[in-house]
Amino acid sequence: MVKTVYKNYLKSLLTRLFILFLSMISIAIIGTGRLARQLFHLFGSLKDYSPSLILGRNEGELAQFNHVETRSDFNKIILEDLVFLAISDRAIESVSNQINAPNALVCHCSGSIPISVLKKHTATGVFYPLQTFGSNEFIDFSKVPLLLEASQKEGIETLSALAKGVSSRVDFSDSNKRKSIHLAAVWVNNFSNFLFSEAASYCKSNEIDFKLLGPLMEQTVHNAIDLGPDMAQTGPARRGDTNTIKSHIASLESVSQKKIYQYISDAIQEKYKHEL
Amino acid sequence: MVKTVYKNYLKSLLTRLFILFLSMISIAIIGTGRLARQLFHLFGSLKDYSPSLILGRNEGELAQFNHVETRSDFNKIILEDLVFLAISDRAIESVSNQINAPNALVCHCSGSIPISVLKKHTATGVFYPLQTFGSNEFIDFSKVPLLLEASQKEGIETLSALAKGVSSRVDFSDSNKRKSIHLAAVWVNNFSNFLFSEAASYCKSNEIDFKLLGPLMEQTVHNAIDLGPDMAQTGPARRGDTNTIKSHIASLESVSQKKIYQYISDAIQEKYKHEL
Repeated sequence: MVKTVYKNYLKSLLTRLFILFLSMISIAIIGTGRLARQLFHLFGSLKDYSPSLILGRNEGELAQFNHVETRSDFNKIILEDLVFLAISDRAIESVSNQINAPNALVCHCSGSIPISVLKKHTATGVFYPLQTFGSNEFIDFSKVPLLLEASQKEGIETLSALAKGVSSRVDFSDSNKRKSIHLAAVWVNNFSNFLFSEAASYCKSNEIDFKLLGPLMEQTVHNAIDLGPDMAQTGPARRGDTNTIKSHIASLESVSQKKIYQYISDAIQEKYKHEL
Repeated sequence: MVKTVYKNYLKSLLTRLFILFLSMISIAIIGTGRLARQLFHLFGSLKDYSPSLILGRNEGELAQFNHVETRSDFNKIILEDLVFLAISDRAIESVSNQINAPNALVCHCSGSIPISVLKKHTATGVFYPLQTFGSNEFIDFSKVPLLLEASQKEGIETLSALAKGVSSRVDFSDSNKRKSIHLAAVWVNNFSNFLFSEAASYCKSNEIDFKLLGPLMEQTVHNAIDLGPDMAQTGPARRGDTNTIKSHIASLESVSQKKIYQYISDAIQEKYKHEL
C-alpha cells in the first residue's frame, strides 16, 4: 500500500517535471462523469496541454482515468494552470468554494450558471460547449460551439487559445447571454428528445422499429437549420387537415399523449392559419 | 399555337415509341408540388423507368417540368403503366375517381390515407416515402424507408422492383400499420420542428444565431437513434434541477412558451423521478 502511494507520487512528480520541461499548460479536471471524460480525452489530444490531475469523490470512478494523477481529497492544493469544474450545476458553487487552486484559472462548463459563483478565486472563466453529452461516444469538438467568458483579460486569452485549438466556432458571451443560449438548447435538445421518446414509446406499443424514423429525424434537423423551422414546417396541422389530426388523436392510447398532440397541433394551426 | 400543339404531340408520340422500344415502364405523375418534383427527378434517374406524363391543374406549375408531356385535362385517358398521385391527402380520393387509367397500377404516396380510396381502379398501390419534403433540395432516397402496399400480387412485385432500385430500406405495411408509422413521423418531424420554431423565435428576440444550435440538434437526433431517446435524455428536467427550470420559465416572454416549457419539463421529471 505504502509502495503504491510512493509509486503514484513519483509518477505524478515525473509528469509534472515533464510538463514543465515542455512548457505545456497543465489541466486539472474536477468530476468523473460524461463531460469530465470528454474533456480529458479532448485536452489529452492537444499538443500544448496536458491533463495532469482528475479530482473526484468516487475512487471507483477515478480508476477509469489512465496516465494521470487521480485524487479524491478536495482540500489538497491544486497546482495546475487550468481547473475545469465538469460537475453538475448544483455542485459548482460549493465545490468552487472548497478547492484551493491559488495559481489557476478556475472555469466551469455550465450554460446556466453565472461566472460569479466562482468568486472565491481570482482568475475565473466559463468554457461552455453547446452540445449534449448523453452518449459515451467521444464527440467531435471541431464543430461544437464553445462559448467563453472570463473575469480577466488574461483569462479570455488563455481560454480563447485553448478553444480555438479545439473548435472552429468560438464565441464570447456573458452569463446572461449564455443563459439564453442554454434555454434555447433545452428546447431543441431536451424537449425534442422528449417528443422522440413519446414517439418511441408509441412505436413500441405498435410494433414499429423506431430506427425506421432515423432518416426523417435527420432531414428534419437539416431542413430546420437550412430553411429555418418556420419554412420547414410540414404535416397535417400546417395543412389544417383536421381529419388526420382527429384520427391520430383517436388512435393514441395515453391521455397525456392525446393532450400534447392536441396542444402542439393547435399551436401549429394557429401559426399557419393565415395560409389556409 | 397550332404548330406548338402539333410539335408537342409529335414529341410525346416519339417519347412513347422510344419507351416502348426500350421496354421501359412508363410513369405518370399527378401533381406539381414538392413531392411530384422529387418523384419526377427520382424516377427520371432510373434506367428502366421513364416519367412520360405530368398531370396538374396549374399550367404555370406544369411549365417547370421539362422533357415530358404535361397535361391539365384530368379526364383524358392515361396510357402509362404506373400512375402516382403526388397530391394532398384530401384530394387523393376525388382525383382517383376522376382519372381514367385502364391499364395502370394507380398508387398514392400518403402515410395516412388507406389504399381503399383508390377503389375505382383495378390495380392499386401505395408508395409512401417516410420522409419530409419541406425543402426544395433533391432528397437522397437511398436511405429513405419506402413503405409499400398493393391490392394485387403483381402490384407488390411492380412496386417492390421499383422501390428496391431506389432505396435500401423497403418495407411492406397495410393501411393501418402505415397510419401508425405516419403518426410517429408526425411526432418526430412536425412536432419537433414546432419546438425548433419556438426556439428560433426565442433566439431572434434574444439576438442569438439559431444556426449556433445546429451541431446540438444533429447530435440530439444521433443519440436518440443510437441510444434510444429514453437513455439519451439530458437537461434540467431530467436532473430534477428546479432552480434552472424556474429561472428559464421566468425569462420566457410568451405565455404559451411558458406553458409548454412547464408541461414538457413536468412530463420529463415525472418520467425520471425514480432516478432522483
